[in-house]
Amino acid sequence: MSEFDFTLETTAGRARTGKITVNGREAKTPLFMPVATKAGVKTLTSEDLCSIGVEALITNVYHLMMRPGVETIEGAGGLHDFMNWDGIIFTDSGGFQMIREGFTSSLDSDKVKFKSVLDGEVYELTPEKNIEIQERIDTDVAMCLDHCPPYPAEREELVESLERTSSWAKGCRDAGSIVFGISQGGTDLELREKSCRQIKDIGFEGYALGGLSIGEPVEDMYRMTSIGGKIFPDDKPRYFMGLGSPVDLLEAVDKGMDVFDSAYPTRNARHRSIFTAEGTIRIDKNDYKNDHTPLDPSCDCPTCENYTKAYIRHLCKSDELAWMRLTSIHNLYFILKLMKKSRESIKKGEFKDFKKSFIQKYEDG
Amino acid sequence: MSEFDFTLETTAGRARTGKITVNGREAKTPLFMPVATKAGVKTLTSEDLCSIGVEALITNVYHLMMRPGVETIEGAGGLHDFMNWDGIIFTDSGGFQMIREGFTSSLDSDKVKFKSVLDGEVYELTPEKNIEIQERIDTDVAMCLDHCPPYPAEREELVESLERTSSWAKGCRDAGSIVFGISQGGTDLELREKSCRQIKDIGFEGYALGGLSIGEPVEDMYRMTSIGGKIFPDDKPRYFMGLGSPVDLLEAVDKGMDVFDSAYPTRNARHRSIFTAEGTIRIDKNDYKNDHTPLDPSCDCPTCENYTKAYIRHLCKSDELAWMRLTSIHNLYFILKLMKKSRESIKKGEFKDFKKSFIQKYEDG
Repeated sequence: MSEFDFTLETTAGRARTGKITVNGREAKTPLFMPVATKAGVKTLTSEDLCSIGVEALITNVYHLMMRPGVETIEGAGGLHDFMNWDGIIFTDSGGFQMIREGFTSSLDSDKVKFKSVLDGEVYELTPEKNIEIQERIDTDVAMCLDHCPPYPAEREELVESLERTSSWAKGCRDAGSIVFGISQGGTDLELREKSCRQIKDIGFEGYALGGLSIGEPVEDMYRMTSIGGKIFPDDKPRYFMGLGSPVDLLEAVDKGMDVFDSAYPTRNARHRSIFTAEGTIRIDKNDYKNDHTPLDPSCDCPTCENYTKAYIRHLCKSDELAWMRLTSIHNLYFILKLMKKSRESIKKGEFKDFKKSFIQKYEDG
Repeated sequence: MSEFDFTLETTAGRARTGKITVNGREAKTPLFMPVATKAGVKTLTSEDLCSIGVEALITNVYHLMMRPGVETIEGAGGLHDFMNWDGIIFTDSGGFQMIREGFTSSLDSDKVKFKSVLDGEVYELTPEKNIEIQERIDTDVAMCLDHCPPYPAEREELVESLERTSSWAKGCRDAGSIVFGISQGGTDLELREKSCRQIKDIGFEGYALGGLSIGEPVEDMYRMTSIGGKIFPDDKPRYFMGLGSPVDLLEAVDKGMDVFDSAYPTRNARHRSIFTAEGTIRIDKNDYKNDHTPLDPSCDCPTCENYTKAYIRHLCKSDELAWMRLTSIHNLYFILKLMKKSRESIKKGEFKDFKKSFIQKYEDG
């Protein structure tokens, strides 16, 4: 019943376009997925996501198993029905949260045990059980349970996390039908390469870079991206987890990455930081009190087609919550459009030029 | 250029249906207007209002003159452009707020003077200037500056407010082209009658009951409603200001009222209280954790067509703001539908039956 396919369409250097088809649902790559951690993208509904062309999103099993609980989602007929979302759903295993949020009771090569911050209930998860839950709540793509050390981490810690990640990955592979593997290794060249190869050798429907974009220097992050772009097989999607700033996305596409997710666009929107072709602006600034132009005059999102900076700033200054939804729609659309333009320029063989001119304008603004 | 028309269509007892046409925009009566105090209905956008069939809304000059300020709205081309709203706009004079929010510097028969809570700026408004501002920001229907005493008030206070309201009403009439008069008089039979006659004698495009639904016993409120329904001319719209609960609306329609506004539906929605045909429910209750049916199974609003109690409760418990928009849309739609059913049953001569069966089901639920 579960079906997964990735079709590679065009390449330009290492950058590439393609199509993911999973359980009858489709998404074009390079693909950006908004983060619906708790089965909702903050301030938005599934209709909002549809209206701006979102094709896939990622939820988080760690949060959802605590609230509303697996049984409630199952009772609704699965996540797609619960959220009224018919696009692709990825689920994050929640390893990142379970292990790093400071309440892990124990952790070994077989399982992770943690206490709920909501009610103190103790959960014990093996990699197999984690994948089983992801499938029970009707995910399209399950992500491996991995162990992501903080940045910076001692080499010893990285080595240990690598072994655990690799061992868990085997359990996840055996337990699930559509699963993406995740590499760790921090920014250590040798360990990252090793992890990418380990994950590749196990064999998955797709391959992810984990444990990056968590505070390391951007040059190190790009170096690790290139490793993934080279080691991961060409005929499978490559997923850089947690990446969402416009410039980083273009650099990662350029290094062969296909799939991304991040709360960056929507979190920035709620913090009043608005993406425009000429860089970010702060919507609450006095400069915009009488600015009756759209957030980004070159944008054709529903927010920019209907509202002005002056109006959105007024709502923001007046604590009228609608402004957060309007800015979230805009920032998310901005990133989706960036992916669309990337795909078009890759197809035309002009991606390098597109990337250069976008970044120049964005950073000069 | 300003054009106002009210066509009375059907009557059934004192209840009636009709149509308001103003500056080329139309609305059917009985009409409920959501409150967009600060140029936005809380948590919603103008597209949301369109999508559920809102035909008119009311904003508030007191709030808007302080923020964003008259110049900003004028600069946008007026309120319709500022809010991207092409339906009818009523503006409240803000008398209620200016005089009752505890920061009035002075008040006499010529003017009201108050200090902004935002920046301490002192505003001085004559009735003429108030109407002028309402017209400058592009209202369709201006409301008279009135003096609304609190409930309960001494008779002496009511008498004084009546004189002021009547004197100001003359100034407003002279200054504006499409203006509704407002009667005061609290729940004093004699004073309310006197005020209704005074306002009627001055002559306006429509007539409102002010200073009700502010804490007085419901029987007194209904008695005052009947006075308005009898004294105000049949060929003009009658507006009960600040009324919004389902049962009160039906009672007021039954007594000849045509137009209503209130924050009640949206405020209740944000306080987790949901209107259904069988009474209100609290969406955060444990009962709904696994209830995969719509908020009101008999409702066809966008929220009920797409989401379940279990999902909306989950968003609510998880502090995901989208739940407030979803419940606001539902409650508002519920009231709009109630007005629609009222119009239909008046046309069929079945309003009394409709009212009785609605209230029975709603109050038994």
